[in-house]
Amino acid sequence: MSPRPDERVDGDRLREDIERNGSFGATESDGHGRTNTTGSDANREAREYLVGRMDDAGLTVDVDAVGNVAGYWSPPTASGAPVAAGSHLDSVPDGGIFDGPLGVYAALEAVRAMQDAGATPERPVAVVSFTEEEGTTFASGLLGSSVASGARSVEEALALTDADGRTLKDALDAIDFRGEGRLDASEWDAWLELHVEQHTDLERAGAQAGVVTDITGITHCEATVTGEANHAGATPMGAERTDALAAASEFVLAMEAAAEERVETDLAAVATVGSLDVSPNATNVVPGRVDTGLDVRSVEYDSMNRLCDRAREELGRLEDDRGVETTFERGFDLEPTPMAERCREALATAGETAGIETLSLHSGAAHDSMYVANVTDAGMLFAPSRDGISHSPREWTDWADCEAATRVLTGALATLAGAE
Amino acid sequence: MSPRPDERVDGDRLREDIERNGSFGATESDGHGRTNTTGSDANREAREYLVGRMDDAGLTVDVDAVGNVAGYWSPPTASGAPVAAGSHLDSVPDGGIFDGPLGVYAALEAVRAMQDAGATPERPVAVVSFTEEEGTTFASGLLGSSVASGARSVEEALALTDADGRTLKDALDAIDFRGEGRLDASEWDAWLELHVEQHTDLERAGAQAGVVTDITGITHCEATVTGEANHAGATPMGAERTDALAAASEFVLAMEAAAEERVETDLAAVATVGSLDVSPNATNVVPGRVDTGLDVRSVEYDSMNRLCDRAREELGRLEDDRGVETTFERGFDLEPTPMAERCREALATAGETAGIETLSLHSGAAHDSMYVANVTDAGMLFAPSRDGISHSPREWTDWADCEAATRVLTGALATLAGAE
Repeated sequence: MSPRPDERVDGDRLREDIERNGSFGATESDGHGRTNTTGSDANREAREYLVGRMDDAGLTVDVDAVGNVAGYWSPPTASGAPVAAGSHLDSVPDGGIFDGPLGVYAALEAVRAMQDAGATPERPVAVVSFTEEEGTTFASGLLGSSVASGARSVEEALALTDADGRTLKDALDAIDFRGEGRLDASEWDAWLELHVEQHTDLERAGAQAGVVTDITGITHCEATVTGEANHAGATPMGAERTDALAAASEFVLAMEAAAEERVETDLAAVATVGSLDVSPNATNVVPGRVDTGLDVRSVEYDSMNRLCDRAREELGRLEDDRGVETTFERGFDLEPTPMAERCREALATAGETAGIETLSLHSGAAHDSMYVANVTDAGMLFAPSRDGISHSPREWTDWADCEAATRVLTGALATLAGAE
Repeated sequence: MSPRPDERVDGDRLREDIERNGSFGATESDGHGRTNTTGSDANREAREYLVGRMDDAGLTVDVDAVGNVAGYWSPPTASGAPVAAGSHLDSVPDGGIFDGPLGVYAALEAVRAMQDAGATPERPVAVVSFTEEEGTTFASGLLGSSVASGARSVEEALALTDADGRTLKDALDAIDFRGEGRLDASEWDAWLELHVEQHTDLERAGAQAGVVTDITGITHCEATVTGEANHAGATPMGAERTDALAAASEFVLAMEAAAEERVETDLAAVATVGSLDVSPNATNVVPGRVDTGLDVRSVEYDSMNRLCDRAREELGRLEDDRGVETTFERGFDLEPTPMAERCREALATAGETAGIETLSLHSGAAHDSMYVANVTDAGMLFAPSRDGISHSPREWTDWADCEAATRVLTGALATLAGAE
């Protein structure tokens, strides 16, 4: 009897790849930091190393027009639509070494493990690295997957500019990673992504992997409150003041209270006023205007809608009670994304087979899988994050947990590819 | 019988000076805007025009080491300590044409009116323009008067730097307005300042002038609230969040409520969180730190102390209730300044004599007179501000009100100088 593919997962080989990837753009902060932004030298080095490792594993490498990298394993037994797995290599500035790369190199390790186990998949397997998931430079996030899922055209993506006005096209040309054509996720039979949890559910449960049920929807709203800037000394308290910051403070607290109330029926609901800018922002001037950015998420779209309605109501109340003027705009809006049943099952079963406990949980963070799930069956697996920290040099996942989660991914990928 | 000096106040002459002064650094915004900051071309032009007008009136002009300008009228009848009057010529960016210049040119007009009336003062009269009252460039305000009152040394003042690192010394040299010696307000027998009210008490009462009883004290405090920056999606509501902005919002509202409560026993009490900066200030990140600037004022120092105590208490409560860390620092602190009885009387009597109604009121804004009052008898007179607007091109005082207030100033100055 041949070994199961997951039994051939090599934790050291995986660790070597992740550590090597983490050395590109490594920062000097305490912990394990790296800065890998689109078009940077670190980004080029990381991409070149990945292509080299794909070559080593005998994969056929393809780079598409927006820099998405895919490596195909197509043994003679395989035909039809591929099963794909991966994540992203880019990072936020001074981010961690696991967020993204774990999913890319776990997918590559899964292929190597299948090869080592002598598996004969019925479908080709693709290892994928999407361009700029983090949204640090050219878009607000999920750039490569938005193109691969058809939500954004290649032309639109290449015309995106960074803060200095450089286009994505030029940035990719500069690192020689602008290929041709478009990686098309709708042609995949299924998709799996392993990612760090960025929260503490797994750590607290003592589980080495988590099967994601849903990715929360996200909406970003802009609310402005306009009062009247005035002399902080010469303007008495009471009716003569229209303090935009005092009004905005009520808005911040009302949204916090609304989300806390919502949690009673929907555990995943969150609302955060994450940004707030005051004008003129001088200690001796009554604030005249406040601009806020509100982040609302849930696995229930209805919850998100209710929280946005609540924001509008609260702003209306402030207009009545405080005489301010307000605006509210619901911009970026992604509905919650349930993961495909057969992908979840494949992951859960793979955990059982390997004797690795898995937990069912939702993802509060956005991932490339949100876009991919719009065009094919998608599944996500989480590995534990120490203290839930991410986007920080203090982000950490124990190597044993990386290996265990990769074994679960490998088992599921083998199942979906018919490689058992 | 010779005419009273106030009867010789020439509203057109006053208007011509104020309008001409307003043309230096005039801005193109709606209304009557100007930008006159220390060391700018506009500042040089305004100073040169003032010196020219003082020359025209036969005054002996003196520029001190920090650029304070004084013009002395010393007729043969006069001896002993001078009586001084004036204000400042500088403005905030895109400020109004009356805030400051009205007081300087009203003082000059008062001297001219006394001259025209053939008055024979027993004391010399000084017309004064203090350097940088607004604090836009080199200090937080009241620069020239702080030196003239001995609160700040000449050396300390000249070493102050602007945002580009240029010293006040260099800025004054560049416009050829760094003189010698120190204008010493303690040598004055008395001081009067006419200024626009920057509030609506006079407008609502239909009075053309207001006699200031006290200038409110001011303290500026810095309060910081530190929570934990975290993923806005992956961090559930409740105990796992330590949202610095939600905590700071409670602080803003608590200070507003505390001041509103204080007003019940002290009408002049105000507390304003005028500035608030969020870190990292991204819509999708739970705020980790908030820095706020709190402005507290009253004519009762006890009220100011109580409001600062209340701020500390509230921050302590937030530490207990929300698990944030806080700091509180009371920096800039000026006690309330009562105006001298004899100056107030001289102004009120001058109003009666001229048949111009005056109102008693306090000043919520800081003025050079705060420093001057520490070293000699000081009085302040207010002219109405349309809609209370100041620090804006929309700042306005009707010319008839300028003239009426200048007549009151002239009468009081003549009385104090023994020129009746």
